Amino acid sequence: LASKLPAVGTTIFTVMSQLASELGAVNLGQGFPDFDCDPRLLDAVNEAMRDGHNQYPPMAGVPALREAIAAKMEALYRRRYDPLGEITVTAGATQAIITAVLAVARAGDEVIVLDPCYDSYVPNIELAGATPVRVPLTPHSFRPDFDRIAAALGPRTRAIIVNTPHNPSATAWTREDMLRLQELLAPTDVLVISDEVYEHMVFDGCEHQSAARFDGLAARSFIVSSFGKTYHVTGWKVGYVAAPAPLMAEFRKVHQFNVFTVNTPMQHGLARYMADPRPHLDLPAFYQRKRDLFRQGLAGSRLRLLPSEGSYFQCVDISAVSELSESEFCLWLTREIGVAAIPLSAFYGNGFDQRVVRFCFAKRDETLRSALERLSRL
Amino acid sequence: LASKLPAVGTTIFTVMSQLASELGAVNLGQGFPDFDCDPRLLDAVNEAMRDGHNQYPPMAGVPALREAIAAKMEALYRRRYDPLGEITVTAGATQAIITAVLAVARAGDEVIVLDPCYDSYVPNIELAGATPVRVPLTPHSFRPDFDRIAAALGPRTRAIIVNTPHNPSATAWTREDMLRLQELLAPTDVLVISDEVYEHMVFDGCEHQSAARFDGLAARSFIVSSFGKTYHVTGWKVGYVAAPAPLMAEFRKVHQFNVFTVNTPMQHGLARYMADPRPHLDLPAFYQRKRDLFRQGLAGSRLRLLPSEGSYFQCVDISAVSELSESEFCLWLTREIGVAAIPLSAFYGNGFDQRVVRFCFAKRDETLRSALERLSRL
Ligand SMILES: CSCCC(=O)C(=O)O
Ligand SMILES: CSCCC(=O)C(=O)O
Repeated sequence: LASKLPAVGTTIFTVMSQLASELGAVNLGQGFPDFDCDPRLLDAVNEAMRDGHNQYPPMAGVPALREAIAAKMEALYRRRYDPLGEITVTAGATQAIITAVLAVARAGDEVIVLDPCYDSYVPNIELAGATPVRVPLTPHSFRPDFDRIAAALGPRTRAIIVNTPHNPSATAWTREDMLRLQELLAPTDVLVISDEVYEHMVFDGCEHQSAARFDGLAARSFIVSSFGKTYHVTGWKVGYVAAPAPLMAEFRKVHQFNVFTVNTPMQHGLARYMADPRPHLDLPAFYQRKRDLFRQGLAGSRLRLLPSEGSYFQCVDISAVSELSESEFCLWLTREIGVAAIPLSAFYGNGFDQRVVRFCFAKRDETLRSALERLSRL
Repeated sequence: LASKLPAVGTTIFTVMSQLASELGAVNLGQGFPDFDCDPRLLDAVNEAMRDGHNQYPPMAGVPALREAIAAKMEALYRRRYDPLGEITVTAGATQAIITAVLAVARAGDEVIVLDPCYDSYVPNIELAGATPVRVPLTPHSFRPDFDRIAAALGPRTRAIIVNTPHNPSATAWTREDMLRLQELLAPTDVLVISDEVYEHMVFDGCEHQSAARFDGLAARSFIVSSFGKTYHVTGWKVGYVAAPAPLMAEFRKVHQFNVFTVNTPMQHGLARYMADPRPHLDLPAFYQRKRDLFRQGLAGSRLRLLPSEGSYFQCVDISAVSELSESEFCLWLTREIGVAAIPLSAFYGNGFDQRVVRFCFAKRDETLRSALERLSRL
């Protein structure tokens, strides 16, 4: 059987997590919290199961959850999405993104991604039979380069996938960035798949610049988010997508034949839990404290700290510490220092190596302290 | 935006369930139980959540669950699948099937389906850019017509999707059927996607003829099943696929970029629950009793009962009762008699109408009695 994805191996996240667990290293590689979620969320799911919410929910999601999502988006981004026709609950953000890609991109189409990018985007585009077009963010600073994006736009461009706050770089797009994108796309019919899974992790008093805030973007965007990231339950695999009704109609045609629908008790539990907005409103402060703890711990080291504007990641430049390539450094760091990290080269199509690796600080303070203690040996 | 799936509307299951609920009809349309699952299964999931199993599980599934699946398949079908490399947990059987299709079929390939078939198969094939080839089962008796299947096989045939016990017809393939299929495919490299979600619902002492029982089929098959069907939790969206390692490697390349992985607490709960084989071993008797209750209730009516060899469906011929088309009859039945059913024509590419509709008997006895009482007015 000839592989349809010959370039694809096991994701770097799985590789590094396995290595970390084999070697007993502190795992700051794969992005997931090592602490528990709010027990009230578990209570809400358990109640939903006991209330008999265990059969198929509506295809697009439990109505109360879609209503809660719409209410949250309206409160934060001042745009009202119709829960009936414009919001769909998904089996995580990854499933939302592949479903949007399959719904809109076909053979002959091009879809732009901005390197470095999450590793599912390009295979998603290939599985739709379309052609990925990789446009780099500026090296080291990871800003969108609108001249290069403009140059990549053409008559075959069907969509662009953007991601803010950005994994892996931890940068966040500014209002000006979003306005530039809006302006650039205005004369086109290019769609936007806006991966906003870290929407509630933006630091230093900045606001998340959701595509939902911008009329010209919202009208052409699938906005994707993740309850796993927001509520510390990455293993639940529940996310959602918001899009104008005509786009959502196409999305659902694919969604119903991909997963059909999403875990019922988790959806009911999340709906009940979302009645209280504090968990997501408190998230920036919660993660900023962890970010600062981690950054302060590294301040005296020869790992040069890059800005962390959003997400739960912190990137560092390793050039003063090691001559190794990013990925060799990550293996070495896991083996010899006992801390797992992720090489940024894994997020580039061409393996571009700018001597930067990514740590995840979504960890208990004691985990972060133990990692810092090990890293102090560098 | 031009639709990639222009022929696709809302699934018949959603349409009929909505109508039934609006009208207060007894819903024997969409296939799902109206009774609760075993509370011990809920306890097991709740324990898993409280034990902190809420972050990403391994991409292919929680090891204990994959081991339990392997043990069950070995006990029932005498074939050992390696949990590490040959079993993957999926977000329901539908996601397993689209993932297998996307992993193996590409533009220019043909994939055979046997009409009537589940409504996701054909869009799945189309989304892979491949060409669906519809071969009808024999009308009214719903047996595989191997001459027609043989005629459909050609150099471009990449795979065939088979389904036993069969939705919607409730027929089950015999050992001879499976041997014929094995023989037919022996000189080819055609793959099999074997949808066996009703594997534990086979009646009258017959055995389920899993593709896993046949060396020549198992070597080329993705075998798909569903915990939702087996444990009365259709809303949990957990299923699995078993396949030889080289096929599974390709499956996982797509799976990791579709859903990445599946709900962690549900997986742990299911693994614990599966330690006791009685729930699935007791299932044939459990559903046969319901089937017989429903059949006996209809025995005196002018709805002619077709055989129900497996699944939780009962088909009836309506020709002595009505001149309406199948789908008009189902609407009329829901509105006027207060019982929802599904027209078999919805499962055919060409809308073939053989005057047969499908009832689901996965319902509490009182639900079945109330439906029977209404149907007695026919
Ligand atoms: C799906 S595992 C990867 C988790 C993640 O988003 C990351 O580490 O970047
Ligand atoms: C996914 S809803 C349909 C349930 C089902 O399998 C059926 O009714 O055939």
